[in-house]
Amino acid sequence: MGRFDEREKDQLRPIKITKGFTRYAEGSVFIEWGNTKVLCNATVEESVPSFKKGSGEGWVTAEYAMLPRATHTRNKRDINKLKLNPRATEIQRLIGRALRGAVDMKELGERSITVDCDVIQADGGTRTASITGGFIALALACQSLVERGLIEKVPMHHYITAVSVGIVEGKGLLDLCYEEDSAAEVDMNIIMSDGMGFIELQGTGEHGTFSQEQLEEMLGLGKKGILDLMEIQKRALHGLELKEN
Amino acid sequence: MGRFDEREKDQLRPIKITKGFTRYAEGSVFIEWGNTKVLCNATVEESVPSFKKGSGEGWVTAEYAMLPRATHTRNKRDINKLKLNPRATEIQRLIGRALRGAVDMKELGERSITVDCDVIQADGGTRTASITGGFIALALACQSLVERGLIEKVPMHHYITAVSVGIVEGKGLLDLCYEEDSAAEVDMNIIMSDGMGFIELQGTGEHGTFSQEQLEEMLGLGKKGILDLMEIQKRALHGLELKEN
Amino acid sequence: MGRFDEREKDQLRPIKITKGFTRYAEGSVFIEWGNTKVLCNATVEESVPSFKKGSGEGWVTAEYAMLPRATHTRNKRDINKLKLNPRATEIQRLIGRALRGAVDMKELGERSITVDCDVIQADGGTRTASITGGFIALALACQSLVERGLIEKVPMHHYITAVSVGIVEGKGLLDLCYEEDSAAEVDMNIIMSDGMGFIELQGTGEHGTFSQEQLEEMLGLGKKGILDLMEIQKRALHGLELKEN
Amino acid sequence: MGRFDEREKDQLRPIKITKGFTRYAEGSVFIEWGNTKVLCNATVEESVPSFKKGSGEGWVTAEYAMLPRATHTRNKRDINKLKLNPRATEIQRLIGRALRGAVDMKELGERSITVDCDVIQADGGTRTASITGGFIALALACQSLVERGLIEKVPMHHYITAVSVGIVEGKGLLDLCYEEDSAAEVDMNIIMSDGMGFIELQGTGEHGTFSQEQLEEMLGLGKKGILDLMEIQKRALHGLELKEN
Amino acid sequence: MGRFDEREKDQLRPIKITKGFTRYAEGSVFIEWGNTKVLCNATVEESVPSFKKGSGEGWVTAEYAMLPRATHTRNKRDINKLKLNPRATEIQRLIGRALRGAVDMKELGERSITVDCDVIQADGGTRTASITGGFIALALACQSLVERGLIEKVPMHHYITAVSVGIVEGKGLLDLCYEEDSAAEVDMNIIMSDGMGFIELQGTGEHGTFSQEQLEEMLGLGKKGILDLMEIQKRALHGLELKEN
Amino acid sequence: MGRFDEREKDQLRPIKITKGFTRYAEGSVFIEWGNTKVLCNATVEESVPSFKKGSGEGWVTAEYAMLPRATHTRNKRDINKLKLNPRATEIQRLIGRALRGAVDMKELGERSITVDCDVIQADGGTRTASITGGFIALALACQSLVERGLIEKVPMHHYITAVSVGIVEGKGLLDLCYEEDSAAEVDMNIIMSDGMGFIELQGTGEHGTFSQEQLEEMLGLGKKGILDLMEIQKRALHGLELKEN
Repeated sequence: MGRFDEREKDQLRPIKITKGFTRYAEGSVFIEWGNTKVLCNATVEESVPSFKKGSGEGWVTAEYAMLPRATHTRNKRDINKLKLNPRATEIQRLIGRALRGAVDMKELGERSITVDCDVIQADGGTRTASITGGFIALALACQSLVERGLIEKVPMHHYITAVSVGIVEGKGLLDLCYEEDSAAEVDMNIIMSDGMGFIELQGTGEHGTFSQEQLEEMLGLGKKGILDLMEIQKRALHGLELKEN
Repeated sequence: MGRFDEREKDQLRPIKITKGFTRYAEGSVFIEWGNTKVLCNATVEESVPSFKKGSGEGWVTAEYAMLPRATHTRNKRDINKLKLNPRATEIQRLIGRALRGAVDMKELGERSITVDCDVIQADGGTRTASITGGFIALALACQSLVERGLIEKVPMHHYITAVSVGIVEGKGLLDLCYEEDSAAEVDMNIIMSDGMGFIELQGTGEHGTFSQEQLEEMLGLGKKGILDLMEIQKRALHGLELKEN
Repeated sequence: MGRFDEREKDQLRPIKITKGFTRYAEGSVFIEWGNTKVLCNATVEESVPSFKKGSGEGWVTAEYAMLPRATHTRNKRDINKLKLNPRATEIQRLIGRALRGAVDMKELGERSITVDCDVIQADGGTRTASITGGFIALALACQSLVERGLIEKVPMHHYITAVSVGIVEGKGLLDLCYEEDSAAEVDMNIIMSDGMGFIELQGTGEHGTFSQEQLEEMLGLGKKGILDLMEIQKRALHGLELKEN
Repeated sequence: MGRFDEREKDQLRPIKITKGFTRYAEGSVFIEWGNTKVLCNATVEESVPSFKKGSGEGWVTAEYAMLPRATHTRNKRDINKLKLNPRATEIQRLIGRALRGAVDMKELGERSITVDCDVIQADGGTRTASITGGFIALALACQSLVERGLIEKVPMHHYITAVSVGIVEGKGLLDLCYEEDSAAEVDMNIIMSDGMGFIELQGTGEHGTFSQEQLEEMLGLGKKGILDLMEIQKRALHGLELKEN
Repeated sequence: MGRFDEREKDQLRPIKITKGFTRYAEGSVFIEWGNTKVLCNATVEESVPSFKKGSGEGWVTAEYAMLPRATHTRNKRDINKLKLNPRATEIQRLIGRALRGAVDMKELGERSITVDCDVIQADGGTRTASITGGFIALALACQSLVERGLIEKVPMHHYITAVSVGIVEGKGLLDLCYEEDSAAEVDMNIIMSDGMGFIELQGTGEHGTFSQEQLEEMLGLGKKGILDLMEIQKRALHGLELKEN
Repeated sequence: MGRFDEREKDQLRPIKITKGFTRYAEGSVFIEWGNTKVLCNATVEESVPSFKKGSGEGWVTAEYAMLPRATHTRNKRDINKLKLNPRATEIQRLIGRALRGAVDMKELGERSITVDCDVIQADGGTRTASITGGFIALALACQSLVERGLIEKVPMHHYITAVSVGIVEGKGLLDLCYEEDSAAEVDMNIIMSDGMGFIELQGTGEHGTFSQEQLEEMLGLGKKGILDLMEIQKRALHGLELKEN
């Protein structure tokens, strides 16, 4: 009666962070989270979108896409449909909002960081892997700015971490893989900062509704996962301190 | 120190439902929610998307758009940018998920209902107005199917209602207008069924994070709003009973 | 042997003008012309297209679109076909040409007015309703510029009015509704100024040709309609005088 | 005080028709009309658009485009702007309506004819050259169907001819070249059948309005031009008789 | 056992060059090469792409397209598929590279020349006709710059010529027509300068591979063709000398 | 005076083949070729394009794309420009032609194989890496069809291998890295089968022309590289024999 892959209900899948997976990006992280694999590349550009020009402030944005064969069946490329995948649109907006929550745009200065999250292989949780791994790529890109003397310190005041929780066959589970996600009655993504405040909360009753009690159960599991993940992020960043303001 | 428009913190703006605003749609609702005005037209078509063909089941989907001058400044039409507005993409996916939660696809039979939510004027809460008004349009379209003898009874088992809540200057408020929304620290959309179960919950810390206590405060305000809105929906549908299964 | 809706052959359908239907547009007119309903919103912007930059002259343009369920069956949105509807393209070019005929671009100054004509419900004559209603929205927008002290007087020298005429079962009829339009042998749109000069004339033999005599019959009916419509426009604008130069 | 190119006010420019300009099209006509040069290729396909399937009837449509350097300055190709040129949209709808007016769709049978009008060089009157030349290409394509034994006789009951007229410096002129067209106060396109009935009439006051008298003057000039053009069409088709029904 | 059209294996099809086929382009060449007919129009514009701005250097680019009925069956226009034809993309990149090889960008100065190659009729070898004819159009456009006193001498140091060769039924043939091209085992395009150096070489085994011997046989035939073609180009340009640097 | 990375002129960069890099594709190969890294995923689908339907034959096609930060600076995604990158168009057509040269479409049966080549990191030679790695992915996908009993034997009769050669500072070099490629006077891609026949040959004089002698020098270097690469391919496929027919 256990989980698909024998994990405890509050246990994350194994996570492996490879920094510098590619050589050109200012911050490059390959995150393997169970069988979900996402390449998160953060690019610094010395320009900002028009709505930020002259503001002295920077901007952070994210793009999310899946390679055609990241899933069981092959998906056509967006360009062949001349349409940005609607699910990807929703996800990259979520990633962008979450990562912007970590950055002080004044301290960043009038430059942009784009975090590209390209899913090489999908097995549930690609958006939480993108945020969790993208945060590290973003921090690495900021560190590169410090190293090049362009800014004095990393302009980030929070760790930002994301995890999924859900209700499967009536029970709360942390970090759903694809099979669990497909069977879930409720699916929730929790994004939190290191002060354990919520950045974003998105819960959906896929087949029916969920109760206040189930919500609380899921939040409890999620917080456990967030704490574990923040440890992983901090280790990857060699304990980089970000002082909340 | 009160609200922008002198409402109580748990008070909705005045809401007016006009049924049959247009004459061709199987279900047509013009919802005026404060200064937010959305035309919700439900169209029945005797066909289904390819992934439902031969299943005996129906499909419900939603589209959301703003007229160019629904807001303070004019927005270019999507077609002139050859790109579906990303915010609209996100919102219409939310509306579709929420409304599908109300419908028994087997009972609907192999036909589609598309709910078009076109924002004539925006003053905050367009997505919750779209869901709340779109639900009524959807129910009217289902009733038209019953009247035409195509199905025996309305294939819906829930009322679905949506409302926004937020934290503005540290205080929880129900149903944010545009000025409140722009100033909000936290913005949350709550979608519930008449059994007071959650269909979807989306909370975002716009300028910082939110705490468990703030979450609970917002959920409390939201539930108050949901109950008031369901009364309005029921009156508009002349007390139509939908039995939860 | 009378008309579909018992009108005289030279009788317009009932017309209702609602000014200020939306609150943000500099000129907003909701025109209900029989069952045809068009929202005409005029937007002023302090910029001009590149071909007018530095000319000291302004520009007026129009966009025309139908909501998906403005007609008996639902039309897909343009953005989902990635193609501006060809009929809409033709119509918005006509509206733009007609409205530009009313404006002195030097007096307007280097700014643009865009008149959005969004058809909420279609029952024949949407293009003539768009021009007739759009003219009022344009005038209101110009008045708002005078009120804000940006220009001294309304930079328009003509009233511009449009009406359809046709030949149905061999007889000339003014202002065709959808059923008449579908059955018409000839369909003509007449756009005139208050000096009773033609701005544009478009006649099409839908099923066969039309003779010089039929042309003259239609022009006669059209002029009658134009005079009636100009009265309506003048009342809506409280008798605003526009001196022909 | 004469015309730009010394023509009489009711005189056409020299017109040259080359049949079989290309070898693959079922009907191919290169029309040189003064300096305006249009290649009109009619293609027969044994299929019809979906709205005609199973009707037993055929369909005729037209496409119009300019080569990039058909004009004084180079125009970007549509595909590089991802947008069908709005002017071309308007024109190809006009050509299609005009040519459909010549064809008996039942006699044509369930097949399509597409008339491609590609402007090689433009000097005013490209739309009337397209209709006048496209009519010949269409007739040639129909003759090829007769020759191949697919239909018994040419399924066309009318000659269709188009010409432009205008008011320049207050005077009516037949067949405007580019310089005249640019300076014209009024521009009108007249499309007629061999019974001298109007197929379509489009008049536009480019800089002001036009009067009933000017309309009549232009119609008189236009009819003179139509008669001359029909002679040219008949010679090109070796006197092919089309019996009006 | 001879060729489809009785040519020798190293014999070109008849080639006819018409200069000034259209009147607006700075260089206009209509090249008829057997039944392949391509209009090559070179346009000079006093601007350069952004990557050349401020460099003092010019730019040369090419666009290639087929008219819809240039071939046996009608091709849809790119704009109706919202996609630049992939074959055309490949070909226009080839033409652009080849023609750029002839031009000294510094001597051209900060202006652009676009060579539009529009295929009126296709019978094999459209890309080599485009390069060979486009070269002449480019030279004419450069001469027009000299005539207008904008530059001192034609900024080209090479003649550039292209020809196709292939292996059909095991034998090498020069200048394949459509039927030969369809049956060819190997198809090769050879682009050379007047110093008999290679500009570009593209050989493809369509049905199998080709050997070093076959490559050499094709190169031999190709050089013969190139020499003949250069004579034609030089005659068309009245022996214009281009000194290799 | 040696090479950028101290290789001999006829020495390949180190190449590493990882099979099964992703888990869903029927054939998955990650090829690391120096600093160039390409993920080649072959997908089998039990359907064919319309031009192959009912033929009993299969089809093989390729798609090529770069991740946004595969290069020194970030490239916008195609979907954000609504245009397939022209260079990618050219390359994926080349890959497709090359791989189709290896497959017997009758033996494959009426199914498709799509080889997606996604460049994770680019350092010169991405098209040759795509063909060389894509061939292995294609073979693995064919083997999976044999294992699943859908076909009897691998329907491939050739090994297909690709390598780049070039002339840098007057000297022939095998397998150019990015720096060499940028400086090259001539760039050539050679695609050969295991019978040492040419599948495709593409040589371009980037800054000037190349001579017959230089062509021969490059072909000699290329053949050396092809032989080395085929060894690597064979090892990766455990010596899989493909009998030339």
